[in-house]
Amino acid sequence: DDIVTLVFHLMNTYQIQKQQIISMGIGVPGSVNKEMGIIGYANNLNFTGVPFLSLIKEKIEWPVYLDNDGNVGAWGEFLAGSGRGYHSMVMVTLGTGIGGGIIINDQLYYGCNNSAGEIGHMVIEKNGLPCNCGRRGCFENYASATALIKYAREAMLENRDSMLWEICQKDTNKLNGVSFFEAVKKEDRVAKAVLEQYISYLATGIANLINIFQPDLLCISGGISQAGSLLLDPLKALVEKEVYTRQDKSGQTVIKVAKLVSDAGMIGAALLKN
Amino acid sequence: DDIVTLVFHLMNTYQIQKQQIISMGIGVPGSVNKEMGIIGYANNLNFTGVPFLSLIKEKIEWPVYLDNDGNVGAWGEFLAGSGRGYHSMVMVTLGTGIGGGIIINDQLYYGCNNSAGEIGHMVIEKNGLPCNCGRRGCFENYASATALIKYAREAMLENRDSMLWEICQKDTNKLNGVSFFEAVKKEDRVAKAVLEQYISYLATGIANLINIFQPDLLCISGGISQAGSLLLDPLKALVEKEVYTRQDKSGQTVIKVAKLVSDAGMIGAALLKN
Repeated sequence: DDIVTLVFHLMNTYQIQKQQIISMGIGVPGSVNKEMGIIGYANNLNFTGVPFLSLIKEKIEWPVYLDNDGNVGAWGEFLAGSGRGYHSMVMVTLGTGIGGGIIINDQLYYGCNNSAGEIGHMVIEKNGLPCNCGRRGCFENYASATALIKYAREAMLENRDSMLWEICQKDTNKLNGVSFFEAVKKEDRVAKAVLEQYISYLATGIANLINIFQPDLLCISGGISQAGSLLLDPLKALVEKEVYTRQDKSGQTVIKVAKLVSDAGMIGAALLKN
Repeated sequence: DDIVTLVFHLMNTYQIQKQQIISMGIGVPGSVNKEMGIIGYANNLNFTGVPFLSLIKEKIEWPVYLDNDGNVGAWGEFLAGSGRGYHSMVMVTLGTGIGGGIIINDQLYYGCNNSAGEIGHMVIEKNGLPCNCGRRGCFENYASATALIKYAREAMLENRDSMLWEICQKDTNKLNGVSFFEAVKKEDRVAKAVLEQYISYLATGIANLINIFQPDLLCISGGISQAGSLLLDPLKALVEKEVYTRQDKSGQTVIKVAKLVSDAGMIGAALLKN
């Protein structure tokens, strides 16, 4: 009901007639059965097996398409952002966890249960840190944005001389991606050492994905990807040393950061089709 | 020249006329540019940039198709073995290393440089055992057939009471997959402990691949896969505990061992098309 109300409100505000609407796309934070229009499971919405599409279609007459939020983000970035001109892409989204989106032959790849691309739950350290998925040593425990901030907080507490204290106004709770990379830019020794450790883990997971997929493009998304070359240059240097095909002249995966970031999901949802 | 001579010899021996031949397929132990018919690099043949297809076509007039040997093995198993009836498959071949073959939407997946599927070079233990690819902690260092035999030899040397000594006639060089699984069948404590450790690593890599691909089928190939349920049952039990979608009712990857084993490459090559 909230979605439908908002849609009609926006149409009214911007004087959009229903004849002008080709279709509507929705990114769902959970698993989606696209064919049935059902949300299998969305933990943050407390939805299990909700017939979402048929509920929406009771009040909306144009075509409506559903997909997972990670997928629509990857789809938007692929069609309208850093992915333009490529045919295959693995999206690595650094956030609370690490999300993935896989595009092969210009199409999103779903797997047998619409749950492919859980790249954050690839173990890179056997018997490592416990993950809330039940495994130990998952990629996201070491290379998510959350992990970066956790490492940085630990390093702050152990190094009272770090510039991070000043930048965060002596409050570890004010530490985030922006303040962390501010300290890196200012050549803070502690922040640089944290970044080096973080990038080492990130490179391990990304080299794994390249060895498996050899996609045209590996695109890094999420807030901290916008640190740009501070993150990307040392990451590329490490990955280039590790990938199996590093001496192959016939082609190499390109590594880029996302261009659209928070708009990617909106654009990708709008461009969904059957 | 050897290949062409053999082909004509076989045609002669089995009274096959050239009109009866639809096409010929060749599995190459190296990287192949299918479009150009060029072998990029084959270390065991010492071939670099060899225009293989045009050399063959000087003497053979029917269509000839080339592909990597791992790919033709996966293709054969997919079309005529354990993969029949599925649409996506990840093949995990346990041999000297760990090879991979990826089939998505009923097609082999190649990546941007025909080198996708190097699943053996996915790091599962950061800073682990050195791999000859230059990385540390690669899947194949822990879960190839070579790794199994290495573990078993080490355990033999430390456990003089193991049945492995008797089965191998007191010669560690006689230890191989067959003799190892013979000891497991006889409930040898040492062999069983080695198998348990081995399967733990194998399960880590396989759960990674399922979390990434969620393929219809994950097929395990290579000589030791033929140990069947001795390998498969404990492996499945571990993987089921680890995969992200273990509670998903909408679909689960099926895990099977290969049926065709050493014939798979021959069959897959014969079934290659443009």
